[in-house]
Amino acid sequence: MITRMSELFLRTLRDDPADAEVPSHRLLIRAGYVRPVGPGLYSWLPLGLRVLRKIEHIVRSEMNAIGGQEILFPALLPRAPYETSNRWTEYGDGVFRLQDRRGNDYMLGPTHEEFFTLTVKGEYSSYKDFPLRLYQIQTKYRDEARPRAGILRGREFIMKDSYSFDVDDDGLKKAYHAHREAYQRIFEKLEVSYVIVAATSGAMGGSASEEFLAESDIGEDTYVRCPASGYAANVEAVITAVPESIPFDGLPEAQVYDTGDTPTIATLVEWANGADLGREIVAADTLKNVLLKVREPGGEWELLAVGVPGDREVDDKRLGAALEPAEYAMLDDADFGRYPFLKRGYIGPKGLLANGVRYLVDPRIVDGTSWITGADEKGKHVVNLVAGRDFTPDGTIEAAEVREGDPSPDGRGPLVAARGIEIGHVFQLGRKYADAFEADVLGENGKPVRLTMGSYGIGVSRLVAVIAEQHHDDLGLRWPASVSPFDVHVVIANKDDAARAGATELAGELDRQGFEVLLDDRKASPGIKFKDAELLGVPSIVVVGRGWADGVVELRNRFSGETQEVPVANAATDIATALRA
Amino acid sequence: MITRMSELFLRTLRDDPADAEVPSHRLLIRAGYVRPVGPGLYSWLPLGLRVLRKIEHIVRSEMNAIGGQEILFPALLPRAPYETSNRWTEYGDGVFRLQDRRGNDYMLGPTHEEFFTLTVKGEYSSYKDFPLRLYQIQTKYRDEARPRAGILRGREFIMKDSYSFDVDDDGLKKAYHAHREAYQRIFEKLEVSYVIVAATSGAMGGSASEEFLAESDIGEDTYVRCPASGYAANVEAVITAVPESIPFDGLPEAQVYDTGDTPTIATLVEWANGADLGREIVAADTLKNVLLKVREPGGEWELLAVGVPGDREVDDKRLGAALEPAEYAMLDDADFGRYPFLKRGYIGPKGLLANGVRYLVDPRIVDGTSWITGADEKGKHVVNLVAGRDFTPDGTIEAAEVREGDPSPDGRGPLVAARGIEIGHVFQLGRKYADAFEADVLGENGKPVRLTMGSYGIGVSRLVAVIAEQHHDDLGLRWPASVSPFDVHVVIANKDDAARAGATELAGELDRQGFEVLLDDRKASPGIKFKDAELLGVPSIVVVGRGWADGVVELRNRFSGETQEVPVANAATDIATALRA
Repeated sequence: MITRMSELFLRTLRDDPADAEVPSHRLLIRAGYVRPVGPGLYSWLPLGLRVLRKIEHIVRSEMNAIGGQEILFPALLPRAPYETSNRWTEYGDGVFRLQDRRGNDYMLGPTHEEFFTLTVKGEYSSYKDFPLRLYQIQTKYRDEARPRAGILRGREFIMKDSYSFDVDDDGLKKAYHAHREAYQRIFEKLEVSYVIVAATSGAMGGSASEEFLAESDIGEDTYVRCPASGYAANVEAVITAVPESIPFDGLPEAQVYDTGDTPTIATLVEWANGADLGREIVAADTLKNVLLKVREPGGEWELLAVGVPGDREVDDKRLGAALEPAEYAMLDDADFGRYPFLKRGYIGPKGLLANGVRYLVDPRIVDGTSWITGADEKGKHVVNLVAGRDFTPDGTIEAAEVREGDPSPDGRGPLVAARGIEIGHVFQLGRKYADAFEADVLGENGKPVRLTMGSYGIGVSRLVAVIAEQHHDDLGLRWPASVSPFDVHVVIANKDDAARAGATELAGELDRQGFEVLLDDRKASPGIKFKDAELLGVPSIVVVGRGWADGVVELRNRFSGETQEVPVANAATDIATALRA
Repeated sequence: MITRMSELFLRTLRDDPADAEVPSHRLLIRAGYVRPVGPGLYSWLPLGLRVLRKIEHIVRSEMNAIGGQEILFPALLPRAPYETSNRWTEYGDGVFRLQDRRGNDYMLGPTHEEFFTLTVKGEYSSYKDFPLRLYQIQTKYRDEARPRAGILRGREFIMKDSYSFDVDDDGLKKAYHAHREAYQRIFEKLEVSYVIVAATSGAMGGSASEEFLAESDIGEDTYVRCPASGYAANVEAVITAVPESIPFDGLPEAQVYDTGDTPTIATLVEWANGADLGREIVAADTLKNVLLKVREPGGEWELLAVGVPGDREVDDKRLGAALEPAEYAMLDDADFGRYPFLKRGYIGPKGLLANGVRYLVDPRIVDGTSWITGADEKGKHVVNLVAGRDFTPDGTIEAAEVREGDPSPDGRGPLVAARGIEIGHVFQLGRKYADAFEADVLGENGKPVRLTMGSYGIGVSRLVAVIAEQHHDDLGLRWPASVSPFDVHVVIANKDDAARAGATELAGELDRQGFEVLLDDRKASPGIKFKDAELLGVPSIVVVGRGWADGVVELRNRFSGETQEVPVANAATDIATALRA
C-alpha cells in the first residue's frame, strides 16, 4: 500500500524545538517522528513507529536465530519478588512505584530478572530442559532524575531483554557469546558504529559483563580505549596498569618532618620543594588518604581509608562500582569528631593501620614505592615512607580517576577517552537470582543443580535516536535502508497532469514489487517537498520533475547526495534494481 | 523455522488450576499459553504470544484498510489533560495513579481520548487535513475491583483503540460505520460469534454508541434481544416500548383512601384487594416513587423523584446511565428529615410537584393511565390518579428494570435476556473532548470549526480468552486457523528411526511451503503426545504413527475430530492442500 503524504498524519516543523539539546532530538521532532507528552515521555507518530518496528523486527530475527523464545511479561509487577532479590530497596528513587486500590505495592518494571527466574523455576525441573533462552520486547520504566535528549533517555521506553538459563558455567558462557555475536549482527544491520567495552554491573549483580556503546560525542557514558590494542572499558571497569615492584635495597629511610600548615596536596608539594629533599617533588609523589564509611547490605557502617597518589582524585563512579553492593559516604565533621586519631590533612598509613582502620590503596602503590604522606600529627608529614617496608595496606582498590594517557592494562600504549551511548549490555549474572529464588533443577547425577543465568539487553526505542544521531546532516535525517520508514520517497515536482499520473503509476509499480513507497502527492511547491524529503531522510528519493518532459526522472541518494537520471520508459525496473543494490 | 516441542518453553499441566473459574482460563493455563504473575496480571508464554500477535495482525490489517494510521502513546500519562476533561476525578478508583520522584501525578492510561485530541490539535489546523483516523495497539491498565477469569478481565491488557477526527457530523458517521464494518470483518476472521448491541456510554461521554458482545454464558454484560427482529441492546440502553395513551373520557375520579399501615407495594396491594375497588389489583397497578439526590458535575445536590410501576425495581445501571454525567444517591434518613413533606411509603406525584421536586417517570406512565399511589399523608393513598389529568410529570426516565418478556421497542415481539463479553465498542463521541481542549481548525469558509470525534476499541488480549471460550471441548483448546499458534502440529508417534526422520522431513517440507509447524519430537509416549496435541488446540494434527510402516500418515481435524489417511509419498502436498482449504 502506497502511503500518500496528502493523507499521512505528519506535520514537519521549520524550526528547532526550543528544548531540544541534541541533533537526533531536534530532527526527530522536526521531521514529525515523535512528539513529547511529558518529561521523558514521547508518542510515536506514524514515521517514528515504522522505524521502531523495523528495529524490533531485526532484533527479533536475530534473537530467534540464536534459539531465543519470545514471551511477554506485564510492566506492572508485584513487590514480593523484588523484596526477595533486595531490589525493591536497591532501586531507590530510580523506579516508579504505585499501589493498587487495596494498598498493595507494585513497581513499573525496569528489568525482569526476578520474574523470568520465577517463571523458569515454575515450569522446568530437569537438566534436560536446558539450555533455555527467553526474551521479550517490552515497555520499561525508569524514573530518571534528568530525562533528557528526547528518546535517548526517556522514562518509558522499549527494550529487548533476554535471559539465559543453564545448568553449568560452560552453558552460560555459550549463551553469553551467542548473545554477544547476535548483538554484533544486529548493530551491523542497523549500521550503528559501536564499541564493546568491559563494564561493571550497576545494580544487577554478577560477574562478566560488557556494554555495547554507540560512538557519540553526546553520550553520557565515558569510556577509554587503547587505539593500539583495541582494549576498551567503561571508566568503572578500567583495570590499572600495575608497575613492577621495586627492591627495598638502598631506599632511604622514612623521615618525619614538621611541615607546618600543609593540609592539602598543593601546600604539601610547595613545602617539599622548599625543603632540601634532593629532588623535585610533584603531586604524584604524595600519598593522599581519603576517609569513607562503608556499609554492606544489612550491615553496620565501618571506616574505610582509600590511598591514592596525590595527583589523582577518587572517582565516585569507580569507587561505587568497586565497593558494590556496599553503600558508602565521605566522613563528615561529626564522624571525624568520633575518631580523634584522624588528623585531617595529616592522615597517614601508619596511624590508620595502627588504629585498625581498613586501608585499601590504588594498585600503583606497589611494594618499594616511596611516598610523602601524613604522619598522623597536625603539621607533620613523613617522607620516603615505603610501601611493603614501612606499611602494608589491606589490599588494593580501583577507585582513582582514569586519565587520558594512562597506560592501557595490556601494556600496548596509552588510553584515550571517548563518549558513547549504551545500546546493549551482555551480562553473566551467574547464580545471583537463582540463589535468591532457589532455582534448582534435577541434575544429570540425580542431585539438585542450581541454575546459572545471563541477562542481555538492547535499548530498542533508544536505537531510533542513536541511528538518527549517527546518520544525519544539516538538512535532516538519513536512515539506513534497513530501518528507513520507507524504501523509497517519490516526489511529484511537476504540476503537469501526465507527470502526476506517471509518478503515481511509478509509485504503484514499486509498491507491487514489494517496496514501501512514500508518495509526496501534496499541492505544495517542489522546494517545500525537497526540503521535507531531506528532513524525513528516506535514503532513496525519486523526483518526477521538469525532466519528465524529456523522458527522465531523477534518483537521489540521500547519503551521498548523488543524483542519477533514469529514463521514464523503464524507471520502475531501474529504480528497483538500484534499491536492491 | 520449525518449532520443536523438545525445545519449546512449555510445560502442560494435567490438572486444572485451583483458582480458574472459567473454561478459557483453565485451558489457557493448562496448555501453557499464559501464567499468572499477580492478581489480574499475566505473562504470555510462547504459544499465547503467538495467538496474541496473530489477533493483533488481523486487527492492524483491517484498521489500515479503512485508512487508519498507527501511532503509539505512552501508558504513563501526566495528570493535566485528564483534569481538563474531568476524568482524573471521574475515573475514581478504577485507574492506577502514581507520582514521580518530583511528586508529579500520573495515570496508567485506561484509554487515550485526551492525548489523541491534543495531538491532532497540535499538528493540524485546516479542514483540508481531515478526515483523520488514528489508532494504536497498546498496553492499557485498569485497577479492577475484582480481576477475574484470567485474561478476560485483567488489570494490564492490550487494546486497539482508534479515534476518528472530522469537521462535520457526516464525516463522523462515515468513520463510525467504517469502524463498525471493520470490526465485523475482524470478528468474522477471528471466528467469534458476537452480537452488536445498542450501548450507553459509561464514563466516555457522547451519543451514538454500540458494543460488540461475544456470546458467552460467562459474560459479565447482560443484554436483551428480540429474536424476531434482531434488536439487541445493553440493559442500560434498552428503550421501553411505550403503550398508547388513553383518552380521559369516562375514567373514574381520583379518590383518596385511608389505607392504614401500607408503606410497601405488597401491603398496598393487599389493602387494595381487600377494599371494594371493583377489580383485582396487582403491583403493576401501583405507582412507586423513589427519592434520590442528584448532582451535576460541579453542581449542588438536588432532589429527584423517579416514578415506576410498583412491580418493577429501579435498575442501578440504567438509572446511572440515564443520569450521567450526574452522580446520584438514594435519600437517607437525614435527608428525609430535612423535607417533612416527604411521607415515606405514602409519597405521591401531587405532593412532589406541589413542593417543586423534579419528577421523572417510567415511559409506561403515559397519559390516561390510572394509578394507585401515595397521597402524601401517612396512612393515605389515592386510587385512580390519572397521568396527564391529575398530574403531569417533568418528563420520563429509562430507569426501571428490564425483564425477559418485555416487548421489544420495535414492537416485533418479546425480549429475551442473554450474556456476553464486551470485545469491541464503537462510539460517536461528538465534540465532548474537542470542546474540552478547544480543538478547532480553520473551516472551508475561513471560520474556525470544532472537530468532532469518534472512539473505537477492541480488547485484543481479551480476545485470546474469548476465542478460547467459544472454541474448546473437554479435551482442550480448538483454535480457528486464523489465530492458531501454528498451522499444523506434526506428532511423531513412532519410535522407528525412519519414521522419525520421515516426520521431520515432512515438517521441513511444510515449513518450506510457508506453514508454521509445531513438531512433537519429544521422547514421550504417543498417548501423552496426543493428549497434549488436543490440549494445545492446533486445528490440524498430523500423526506419524503405526501407519508409517504401511506408507500412510494421519491427518486429524481438531474441530470435527475427523481423521483421514494420507499416503506418505505425497504427504506434504496433500496436507498442504488440506491446510489451504
